[in-house]
Amino acid sequence: VHYLALDVGGTSTRAVVVEADGRCVGYGTSGGGNPTASGGEEAAAAIAAAARVATAAAGAHADGIPAAVVAIAGESGLAGEPLRRALAATRLACDVVFENDVLATYHSGSLAAGGYAIVAGTGAVAIRLEGSRVVATVDGLGWLLGDAGSGFWIGRRVVRAVAAALDGRRPPTALAPPLLAELGIGADGPRADGRPAVLQALVDATYQLRPVELARFARLAFDAEAAGDEAASEIVAAAARALAVTGAAIASPDVATGPIVLGGSILARQPALADSVVTAMRAAGVAGPATTVPDGLAGAAVLALRRGGVAVDEAVFGRIRSSLATLR
Amino acid sequence: VHYLALDVGGTSTRAVVVEADGRCVGYGTSGGGNPTASGGEEAAAAIAAAARVATAAAGAHADGIPAAVVAIAGESGLAGEPLRRALAATRLACDVVFENDVLATYHSGSLAAGGYAIVAGTGAVAIRLEGSRVVATVDGLGWLLGDAGSGFWIGRRVVRAVAAALDGRRPPTALAPPLLAELGIGADGPRADGRPAVLQALVDATYQLRPVELARFARLAFDAEAAGDEAASEIVAAAARALAVTGAAIASPDVATGPIVLGGSILARQPALADSVVTAMRAAGVAGPATTVPDGLAGAAVLALRRGGVAVDEAVFGRIRSSLATLR
Repeated sequence: VHYLALDVGGTSTRAVVVEADGRCVGYGTSGGGNPTASGGEEAAAAIAAAARVATAAAGAHADGIPAAVVAIAGESGLAGEPLRRALAATRLACDVVFENDVLATYHSGSLAAGGYAIVAGTGAVAIRLEGSRVVATVDGLGWLLGDAGSGFWIGRRVVRAVAAALDGRRPPTALAPPLLAELGIGADGPRADGRPAVLQALVDATYQLRPVELARFARLAFDAEAAGDEAASEIVAAAARALAVTGAAIASPDVATGPIVLGGSILARQPALADSVVTAMRAAGVAGPATTVPDGLAGAAVLALRRGGVAVDEAVFGRIRSSLATLR
Repeated sequence: VHYLALDVGGTSTRAVVVEADGRCVGYGTSGGGNPTASGGEEAAAAIAAAARVATAAAGAHADGIPAAVVAIAGESGLAGEPLRRALAATRLACDVVFENDVLATYHSGSLAAGGYAIVAGTGAVAIRLEGSRVVATVDGLGWLLGDAGSGFWIGRRVVRAVAAALDGRRPPTALAPPLLAELGIGADGPRADGRPAVLQALVDATYQLRPVELARFARLAFDAEAAGDEAASEIVAAAARALAVTGAAIASPDVATGPIVLGGSILARQPALADSVVTAMRAAGVAGPATTVPDGLAGAAVLALRRGGVAVDEAVFGRIRSSLATLR
């Protein structure tokens, strides 16, 4: 018997087919599957594609899968009709259950009934589990209202810092050359109303993007910070503070020894930011072990097995993680 | 002979018909006419409506107007085809010339060939004039890239501060009750994943808006600041600093005695922020007189007369301003 699990992100989607003993036997990836970030049709197509690749790799038949879980931000409410159509086209005979993607991240790192997951990728969010249920959520409010310390939050500050520098409001920053290069903006031209042509080109290029796409410029901040740039260092330090606030806000004395699972590209790749979160949670009285996970796929597999009525113990969990590691 | 001048803003559009001696003889208003904020068709309709009302009030015939000026952000480049069609329907026989709206604001306060205009309304921008030409522009980069200290900038921080407070990341703020009331969000309900229902309702309501619409929440910051709220005070203080940076960046020793014209709803209604800008410019060596204007309509009339070949001296300028004041 095969179970299907998907972990849907804004820039990539991952799928795995797992057996009842925890062995992962098929793996597939595709593009971003978040309907908010990519649009409903594109997101649905990405999710269906990852599911097809994983089931084909497993030699599994869609009609022999008793349970399928899709871990996705915003869960089913955001997923909508295009996603249901695309999943119907995969001929899964079972119902597809949507799960909180942050819960999946948590279960990529732990089976414990009480604990924390903090994710900073394109967005930023933290949850607290008690009795295996999500009892508190902090942030995860999206690019306009929240996501403090996230990839978008950092990337937005990168483009604003470069704009302010080109504008004469701030000193020059090492963030400018790589940002302009990435946007294909070349040498400066004539000024219009005293505004540098490169700045006008930056405006034109940036407003072509969906806001969340600014997340891709976050890594420029880390590169420039490492090179000692002041504007970049300010951005990274502010992100560390913002994520620490989120960590402190999710901490509770009721879950003092639960694990802290850190996920998302920002926390996975920036140990200093991960340290900032953990330090704030330690100060708030959380003593549990901290671990970093690459994504929510192993946890989605845990949730799929549970949905299929399979009890997931530490042996099964260990098999999920080790076999999944060999498939990627 | 009649000349037509329009001052187009994101929330309202104003039109005036002016005679060669400066007497304003027809006035009209309509809704927001900025294509970026309102969409091309709605913006064009607003602009045409204001023009019709003003020409009708003046008893002017559209085919007897030798010059018409439309002062608009982004100028003709953003105005586009719907606006050209809407203006054609007004049967103006003359060409319509698009002018920089900040230049119109400047000429609402001064005819001097060298000086400054700083505008903070929905957006925020500063220009410097030398020899009656705009030689420098600072900010005005829009909600995503700049507009530091603007109504949007403040309004965005208001909703983020309320979200952070409802989330437990920040202490409660007096900004919350009026914001929730304005969005029609009532008493709290059951929590989903530990997130307060009012917070989810705030997310749902806010993402329905166009980003620039958040500017309408800026006044909540000033109200709550006056009542001593800490989050609001931080926002207003940060706006004052941001606008001071813009003022300092536009200041030049080459235009040390030119006037400082302040415009836009934020600077017109918040003397403390206007003081912050002027103080920063004084510190940067600008000694010219500071004046606040309600909008760019008088300046648009100046530009329309000039386009029509009329020399605008202080007597004409005085007549524009006094007769316009009686019409509104």
